[in-house]
Parts: sequence; structure tokens; C-alpha cells
Amino acid sequence: MTESYCTVCKERESFFYRKYSGQRLCKRCFSKSVEAKVRATITKYHMLEFDDKLAVAVSGGKDSLSLLHILSKLQKRRPKTTLIAVTVDEGIKGYRDEALDIAVENCKTLEIPLHVVSFKNLFGLTLDELITKIRASGQKTGLTSCAYCGVLRRRAMNVAAREVGATKIATAHTLDDEVQTVFMNILRGDITRLSKEKPVTNQVHPMFVRKIKPFCEIPENESALYAYVKKIPFQDTPCPYASEALRNDVRAMLNNMEEKHAGTKFTVSRAMERLRPIIEQATIKGDFKTCIECGEPSTQELCKTCEMLHQIS
Amino acid sequence: MTESYCTVCKERESFFYRKYSGQRLCKRCFSKSVEAKVRATITKYHMLEFDDKLAVAVSGGKDSLSLLHILSKLQKRRPKTTLIAVTVDEGIKGYRDEALDIAVENCKTLEIPLHVVSFKNLFGLTLDELITKIRASGQKTGLTSCAYCGVLRRRAMNVAAREVGATKIATAHTLDDEVQTVFMNILRGDITRLSKEKPVTNQVHPMFVRKIKPFCEIPENESALYAYVKKIPFQDTPCPYASEALRNDVRAMLNNMEEKHAGTKFTVSRAMERLRPIIEQATIKGDFKTCIECGEPSTQELCKTCEMLHQIS
Repeated sequence: MTESYCTVCKERESFFYRKYSGQRLCKRCFSKSVEAKVRATITKYHMLEFDDKLAVAVSGGKDSLSLLHILSKLQKRRPKTTLIAVTVDEGIKGYRDEALDIAVENCKTLEIPLHVVSFKNLFGLTLDELITKIRASGQKTGLTSCAYCGVLRRRAMNVAAREVGATKIATAHTLDDEVQTVFMNILRGDITRLSKEKPVTNQVHPMFVRKIKPFCEIPENESALYAYVKKIPFQDTPCPYASEALRNDVRAMLNNMEEKHAGTKFTVSRAMERLRPIIEQATIKGDFKTCIECGEPSTQELCKTCEMLHQIS
Repeated sequence: MTESYCTVCKERESFFYRKYSGQRLCKRCFSKSVEAKVRATITKYHMLEFDDKLAVAVSGGKDSLSLLHILSKLQKRRPKTTLIAVTVDEGIKGYRDEALDIAVENCKTLEIPLHVVSFKNLFGLTLDELITKIRASGQKTGLTSCAYCGVLRRRAMNVAAREVGATKIATAHTLDDEVQTVFMNILRGDITRLSKEKPVTNQVHPMFVRKIKPFCEIPENESALYAYVKKIPFQDTPCPYASEALRNDVRAMLNNMEEKHAGTKFTVSRAMERLRPIIEQATIKGDFKTCIECGEPSTQELCKTCEMLHQIS
């Protein structure tokens, strides 16, 4: 048996070397292993009740579509779990419109309903219009486009999930996303947030739909490879507003570390699993009020979303 | 007043731009600001009692000699505090011998007594001999030279401090060292150690002399600049065994971040100040036993130092 055969089935030719486990895998055993890992992650973190109605956040990129395909497969073993894809249309010309078409196409193939909510409908303006307005006003808010979009997108996703009666939201954050966020939070000195980014969010308020991250132990390159192996159509052009310089630096550093010391990302992720409850217990939780403007839950009188919308109006 | 004048005295020409504070400083105001910061750090963390006998760990490099010079200055305001320089001679031909000469020279100038302890005397062999032995045996311990040296050097320093009757040991770990160690511990998944690296160590056992780090808020480049401005002779050749690949990667990443976002290292350091007590409280502390071989305090039957010495004998 030569090195070119799959370590698992020992029959088919390998096409991928998983450095952190030492395995060489064929396409079939690779896909099966990713699906098994997602299943194990869902079990490990008690992500799903048997009768959950799960809103899957679909952007149209490789990660969210790989997740949708895998969850659709797993659903066959969980007949009481229902899936609905949810896409937030921020209103980014030449980018999100294309991604939406791809999301529609995938949902059709998988026979999963798709619910779309737009910034325009929810907040009265598209991200394009919002960014144009900010740039025109010459305001120096110190916030990147991603910061605005992130706050509004999280709100939109939560509203969408409630609209479809979802009991949970699944997002396709990968191991890489999680570990990058750990380092970004430390570099920004945000200790409290270290405990908030977790595989299953707490039910902090009845109006927040809990989020689960079934890909939190799947490396990003494997999520991409899964989409490639399964010939899943996805959008691979980057967002024209992408501006998270810090994340890019952290990503490069972590990929470099992983290259030299395979398994580093898993090590950090496991360390955070131990650290998170310690911080959580020690951190004083703010009470949730109701935003005086939109009625959504907020720790401040005026929620972050309304604050941002005020800023630019 | 042009840009070339010192922001503080507005009289002398500036030679250094401190990006994180926005100040341009002349040599005099720069040195004074570093000395003031060290004084403030000592006060902030209650590093010294009025009558401490302080062993200053002097390697002969820029950081430890800058520290020795500054502490010697501060001592003039604290007549009851006594200083004694302590150097560990690991036995590295062509490196430590040269550094030792420089340490002797500096102590003479400052009129501070110097106490030297050697690996040879304490452990029966020099680091050169130890490394040669390990390499010859072909043992794959997975440990770098720095790992061996670190354990033995910490022991040697503690023994030396006790020999001279010191009540505390001052080491020249800079802000950079501290922040690098935070990231290294996270990348290694070592949560417990995150809380152990602190400005003043706890008195965990009467045989351990407490350590203080008066440079923990001084960036490494400023410690180097201080030595340069004060024309302090120091050794600047790197250790021939230096092999901490992970630290080098982390250092490069952090310097890159600091360059792009001035103040990042301070941000991380302050975040750790908040995180440390949280972890400390949640971490179960191991009881100290007495090592069955050498009688030094240890959490294991056989201490780490004896374990290493056994491994190579």
C-alpha cells in the first residue's frame, strides 16, 4: 500500500493530507469525516433539541453552503428537525445580489425554503446607501464598514429568525473564525467578549434566538474543500467593503503557526473551552432593557442598531 | 516651535517618537520618562517594601542592565532598600563569559555587589556539557535548549537569591516579554500559566523568593534605547542556543500589530491584568511538597530540575 492511498478506506486514492491528524484521505472519506465531525459537534455541545426549527444563516459563500448541505443530510436522521435558510440582503450591488442567486439555487436543489430579509426593508436603507452617506458626511466614527454591517446584520438575522418562527440560528463560523476572534478580542483588550463567543449562545433574552455554530471545530480550509468536493456552487468574490485589517493579520499569523505546529488552532479552541466558563462566571451580566426606539432587547436605553442609524441620519 | 523639538521640555531637539503617546522626546526627557514609569510601576503593583533586599537578575544584556541602572538611581530615594546583582553562569563558552565581564564592569561603576552562581557548581555540569550530552545520546525529549536552560536558570536564580539573603528578585522582563508570553501560553493551550505570569509573583512557598518585574510596562525598544542613551555597555550577541521559534513568530506578529495599531501591547497587558485574578481564583492550586532528591519545593515528588538532570545522566 503506497502513500497515495486513503488512510481510512485503504482503497481509493488520497487527495488531501490532514496534517493535524496525520491522515491521507480520499474524497469520500474526507466528506464523511467532515459530516461526522459536525454531527459530533452538535452532540458535544447539545446544539439541537429533537424538534428544533433551525434557521441556517446562508450568505452564499462556501462555509454557509457547506453547512446547509451537511445539515440537510443530517436532517434525514432527525425527521422532527426542520430547516429554513435565511439570507440577509445588505444591499451591496454586484456582490450580494449574485450571492442571493446562488443561495436560491442551492435551496432549490436541497428543497429547503429560503427567507430573505433586507437592510432596505428593515432599516430604510441599503449598506451601499449607508456607506455612501457616511463617506459623504466626512464623519470620522472610527468604525469600519464591517463594524456597521456586523451590528445591522446580526439584528436582521435575529429578526428574520423570529419571523420564520425559528427556535435556533445556525451560523457557519469555522474553527478559524473562532480562533481569530479570540486573538482579536485579546488584541482589543475585550475580555468580556472572550466568553460570549461560544458554540451555543446563552438564552439571555426571550427575543434573542439562540445561535449555534456546528462548524466551530471544522478548519476553514476543510469547509472550503467540502464545497469543492461536493461541487456545491458558491460565491467566492470577496465583499467590496471588506476592511477587517486586524482579522487579516491575525489570520495570517495563525495560518503560519498552524503550518509550523499542526493542531495549534484546535489547541487554542480547547483552551478557550476551559477559559470561557471561568470568565463567564466572573463577569457581571448587564440587565437587558427594551430599546426606547425599536423595542428590541438592549443593554443600553438606545440599542446599538438604533445608535448607528441615528449617527448617519 | 517645529516638530523637531521635544514635546515635554520644548527646549531640546527630539530624537524619539513615542507613537503610542504621540510624544516626541529629547534624550533627557525620554530617560526621565522611563525612570518615572518604572517608579510608577513599582508603586502601582506594591513591588517593594521600604527595607527590601533586592536581588537584580543581571544577564549582561540591554534589558537587565538598563534595569540595574534605573534601580540604582531609584535606590537613592529609598536608602533602606539594598541592591545586589545576581548573575547565573550557565556555562556557555564565548557567550556567557563575555556577558559576565560586562556585568562585572557595570556593577563596579554602580558600586553594586555582584553574586555569581554557576550551573557547573549547582548541577555538576555546564549548559554546554548538558546540550552536548543530550545531542550525543540522540534522545528526542521534544524539549528545546531554552526549555532545559529555563528550568535550571530559574532554580539557580532562586538559590542565588536565598544565598545572598534577598527578600525579592527583580527581573527585566519587558512589556513585550509579558505580552509575547500571553500569546505563547494561549497558542500552547496553557490557561493556568496565564495567571502565573504577573508583575509580582505570589509567595507560594517560603523557599521561593518572590519575583518582581519593574519593566513590565516598558516596551522592549525603550529599554534598549535607554541603554543606548545612557551609554550603558551591554552584550548584544544572541545566545548560540536560542531556539524559541514560537516566541519569534509571536514577537513578529505583535510588532506588526503595534506598528499598525500603536498601543496594542499595552491594551493586551491591561486586559491580562483584568483576566489574571479571574483565572487565579478559579484554578485549583497544587500543594507544594519537598523534592525527594534536592529538598527544594515542588508540586511533584521529584522536581522539574531533578527530573531533567536524571534524564540526561
